[in-house]
Amino acid sequence: MYLEKLRLKTHAKDEMIDITKDIENAIVKSQIKDGLAIVFCPHTTAAITINENADPDVCTDFIRGLDSISPDWADFKHAEGNSAAHIKSSLIGASETVIVENGRPVLGRWQGIYFAEFDGPRFREFYVKVI
Amino acid sequence: MYLEKLRLKTHAKDEMIDITKDIENAIVKSQIKDGLAIVFCPHTTAAITINENADPDVCTDFIRGLDSISPDWADFKHAEGNSAAHIKSSLIGASETVIVENGRPVLGRWQGIYFAEFDGPRFREFYVKVI
Amino acid sequence: MYLEKLRLKTHAKDEMIDITKDIENAIVKSQIKDGLAIVFCPHTTAAITINENADPDVCTDFIRGLDSISPDWADFKHAEGNSAAHIKSSLIGASETVIVENGRPVLGRWQGIYFAEFDGPRFREFYVKVI
Repeated sequence: MYLEKLRLKTHAKDEMIDITKDIENAIVKSQIKDGLAIVFCPHTTAAITINENADPDVCTDFIRGLDSISPDWADFKHAEGNSAAHIKSSLIGASETVIVENGRPVLGRWQGIYFAEFDGPRFREFYVKVI
Repeated sequence: MYLEKLRLKTHAKDEMIDITKDIENAIVKSQIKDGLAIVFCPHTTAAITINENADPDVCTDFIRGLDSISPDWADFKHAEGNSAAHIKSSLIGASETVIVENGRPVLGRWQGIYFAEFDGPRFREFYVKVI
Repeated sequence: MYLEKLRLKTHAKDEMIDITKDIENAIVKSQIKDGLAIVFCPHTTAAITINENADPDVCTDFIRGLDSISPDWADFKHAEGNSAAHIKSSLIGASETVIVENGRPVLGRWQGIYFAEFDGPRFREFYVKVI
């Protein structure tokens, strides 16, 4: 088993950051050829997701679409004012589980793994565990 | 490997119940120091999620926000009248996978694991598997 | 460990296809009695989810509800015009992790595992890994 903690800096309130290379590198370092990689976000206003990594417009539309799905309501109770980001975090989910085969993540041709920021800019962390 | 089935009672139609302690206890009982814990909800109108466990207003806002995201439509076809709860269940997801390190779940400072009820009050169950 | 790649054909733009039997068969073929099964979708406009498999109206309502949650916006930027499907894919999620016990998936009485198509009809694939 192998565990790695990675850090990143986000630059906007909402941002999709491609972390596929980080996962690939962690799998290589783990020397595990056949198993699973779990990518976990320890924050409650961010998430991990898998989506298209070819056309950056998909990320732009994703951010806009999600804003319209989970908008900020003026009368949300949480004093920090980021309840919409907490909801997005649960909608998208704290982790992704990826199959590892031949020392690489099994991903579709257009798939990338993303750290999704919903309350940035901030310094953030995520974990990769390979088993 | 270790599998535990837990029971709980929900008290409202929509409710977030913090089950972090149950997961921590299951990991201790499993005597597994390094691995994964999978928390699984066997119901189709409830879910498992990870979100903030510090300010209870986050849960209140979560329930209200999700109601507005997936409202009940008068002309939904499913005769039981709980289609919105089924949709919430798939949006939030039936399970969470948590990394286990040093006999404890790796969670962020503000993260708790929740059983999310969308069609209560009911008697409910969930599973924790530690590998 | 056991990995299987399965193929299916979808028949509509949005469609829920019950793949529970495929997962059960993969677990039997794996000869693994106690572990996990990971079901993974390698496409960015489809997803894997768990929901009710008793009343088909739940699937009809699911598709309609999700269309209303993530509608197509005329001014989405992604040129292929399927941004709403990409968003649904991340909302529902690329994978499900299921507990395996006694050579069978641990599912609730009403739960089935579904391949959710959001941009069909297409030829699609998914993976099942049993560990």
